[in-house]
Amino acid sequence: MHFNQIKETSLYVKDLDRTEAFYSGKLQLEVIGKEEGRHIFFKSGFSILLCFIADKTKAGENLPSHYGEGNMHIAFEVPKEEYEATKAWLQSRGIEIEHEQSWGRDFKSCYFRDPDGHSLEIVPSGMWD
Amino acid sequence: MHFNQIKETSLYVKDLDRTEAFYSGKLQLEVIGKEEGRHIFFKSGFSILLCFIADKTKAGENLPSHYGEGNMHIAFEVPKEEYEATKAWLQSRGIEIEHEQSWGRDFKSCYFRDPDGHSLEIVPSGMWD
Repeated sequence: MHFNQIKETSLYVKDLDRTEAFYSGKLQLEVIGKEEGRHIFFKSGFSILLCFIADKTKAGENLPSHYGEGNMHIAFEVPKEEYEATKAWLQSRGIEIEHEQSWGRDFKSCYFRDPDGHSLEIVPSGMWD
Repeated sequence: MHFNQIKETSLYVKDLDRTEAFYSGKLQLEVIGKEEGRHIFFKSGFSILLCFIADKTKAGENLPSHYGEGNMHIAFEVPKEEYEATKAWLQSRGIEIEHEQSWGRDFKSCYFRDPDGHSLEIVPSGMWD
């Protein structure tokens, strides 16, 4: 048995409009669903980013309960040859690069924050091979 | 600018050996890194699942701080034609299906828990198209 990928990744956020302004407005992810007071969903390449209001999903209702607190970490992948341009593009959009890490074999990644303080990273393709 | 995918998804766990027994032993994900007391990393198709001890990563040290609490949600994708077999395979390995949801258009997904109570889901390919 084999999974193709992790299709859905969740973050827990405080303000859906603020989250939309960042992930759609700044990062240009496509909004694929929004339910006021509960969630906003984005498409990012062949992955789905689910941003939930934790107080709402913790109750469960029709689906299994889930929630989270904290400043969680996810990483977006870009083609290796576009890594530097992506970093510059983020900065041009007013996003501060908090840290850049060298991982050897000519691979670097860079870190920034979303409005909830989640730790986002840009990784070049091939880094995990 | 365009991201290929969400490459890294994080969960925060309490016991790395227990996490390894579940994700490697039960779900058969490949372990690609383990640092005692800090993290264990798995490959899942073309995604990476990072499982961290939150108390450790919260401190940050050389990388930006991140941490999480709660019972978070992620979903693994399988080929649509393998959905039922995957569900049966999970059950055959002693994993209880907490809930199955119909999403219309002949798509269903099923939910189960990891040892930390994180809410895992199996989704068939094409469900988000």
